[in-house]
Amino acid sequence: MPTTADLLDQRKFAAQSWFQKLRDQICEVFENIEDTLSSGPMAEKEPGRFERKSWYREDNPDNGGGTMSVMKGRVFEKVGVNISTTHGKFSPEFAKNIPGAEEDPRFWASGISLVAHMHNPKVPAVHMNTRHIITTKSWFGGGADLNTALPNSADTNDFHHAFKTACDKHDDSYYPRFKKWCDDYFFIKHRNKARGEGGIFYDYLDGEDWDGNFAFTQDVGRAFLDIYPRLVRRHMNEDWTAEEREALLVYRGLYAEFNLVYDRGTTFGLKTGGNIDAILMSLPPEAKWP
Amino acid sequence: MPTTADLLDQRKFAAQSWFQKLRDQICEVFENIEDTLSSGPMAEKEPGRFERKSWYREDNPDNGGGTMSVMKGRVFEKVGVNISTTHGKFSPEFAKNIPGAEEDPRFWASGISLVAHMHNPKVPAVHMNTRHIITTKSWFGGGADLNTALPNSADTNDFHHAFKTACDKHDDSYYPRFKKWCDDYFFIKHRNKARGEGGIFYDYLDGEDWDGNFAFTQDVGRAFLDIYPRLVRRHMNEDWTAEEREALLVYRGLYAEFNLVYDRGTTFGLKTGGNIDAILMSLPPEAKWP
Repeated sequence: MPTTADLLDQRKFAAQSWFQKLRDQICEVFENIEDTLSSGPMAEKEPGRFERKSWYREDNPDNGGGTMSVMKGRVFEKVGVNISTTHGKFSPEFAKNIPGAEEDPRFWASGISLVAHMHNPKVPAVHMNTRHIITTKSWFGGGADLNTALPNSADTNDFHHAFKTACDKHDDSYYPRFKKWCDDYFFIKHRNKARGEGGIFYDYLDGEDWDGNFAFTQDVGRAFLDIYPRLVRRHMNEDWTAEEREALLVYRGLYAEFNLVYDRGTTFGLKTGGNIDAILMSLPPEAKWP
Repeated sequence: MPTTADLLDQRKFAAQSWFQKLRDQICEVFENIEDTLSSGPMAEKEPGRFERKSWYREDNPDNGGGTMSVMKGRVFEKVGVNISTTHGKFSPEFAKNIPGAEEDPRFWASGISLVAHMHNPKVPAVHMNTRHIITTKSWFGGGADLNTALPNSADTNDFHHAFKTACDKHDDSYYPRFKKWCDDYFFIKHRNKARGEGGIFYDYLDGEDWDGNFAFTQDVGRAFLDIYPRLVRRHMNEDWTAEEREALLVYRGLYAEFNLVYDRGTTFGLKTGGNIDAILMSLPPEAKWP
């Protein structure tokens, strides 16, 4: 059965609304975390609050844009929770690498992208992103991965368990495939080192069952919303040493290397005139290459 | 007149010896600068000293390597003065983009590469590099550019004047061409912003007059050795504010972006298994993306 225009519009609305709702829920929980910090070197500071800033595509504001929500707090050193919904035409060169775009270069894309860098070296940093893309085909993609300067196996295991549970609910093959995809993708080749403790990464999730794929993408967001705040609360009141903070800053240098050298979204966005602030939101607030 | 093997060997020896001698002279002057700091926030610290570390090509140590000289001092927050001399065969894919390498993939390369990041936001950071490459062709390349968080026109003018003088001694067309090449190359496209105040950049300087090309490359090194220490001494005893230091750290973030996203040497080196420490020596000791 071909997808009617009405059905396409319903799906776009449903996906875009979900990303917005997830953004709202995440921001609320993160601000609550800011409020409940009770000890440690930053406890005397004021709790942070998100600030929102909208942008529109420079080539044509009618083609959409996004909203960045950024908080510089006392637990979250810098966290960005960006949503965007854009449409337009891929350039012929770019269309070659996008499923369904060679036949017709028009696209619609909506998603949420989150990166959190934390003051406390014991609290994991995290990246989460989910998106829905429509060309002559349509698919979901996304994932989440944990990035800790001083990792511990309990956090790593709990993070993976949360996403495994979300995956297993939909397809037994998802977690092993998407975990490996994450390990392969977030690898700093020139350091021969993983960027972090992994998680899941998936893309081009199409196929007949649009509702199922959307439900999975929602469950990835819900898994994130459940597990990440728990890991933050687990460690946020702990003290840290100058050496631990230094280790965090050096670790962040490698994180910046990955994003600037390898990350598809970053390098593509930078080279094709995307919104610079939104693209580079992922870079750490402070990093060292001693 | 074809270049005889003897003459080639003499030229390799002459070029390699020059880069080594220039390295020694630069390190001596920079250590002297460390000794003569007399005021400002870092004056109570111990003067820095260079530490040397040699590396050999991992594919085959017989194919050469290099020596990194790194100093973390009280004027120089992090400075690397690297020399290297390597030989081997370019991969077929890479040979396509190298003059004279398609006919015969063997190459010999020697050079000096320097990046200095300074504690004091008023003291310019700097990059200088000169090199000699031999395939079935042979040429010189290099240049120097100034990178100041808080630039002032006197420093910029004096820096440019020094390299213009070196250029004009050899060819009136050099300075305008090499200045523009520098401006074009050290441009952060996604920020629509120059990386710094420019300088000169040249490559593929071949042609009949090998001695003249070598003499020019030596004069570029001498111009650097004269002007940069003067600019450092001009400002190193000045005080700075926390705001000025913050401006430096943010400026360095853009510098890191350029090197990781655009710099040919960095991205090529990272993706083809070069010596990571030597390649990434250019990254700032500390940077911020607030």
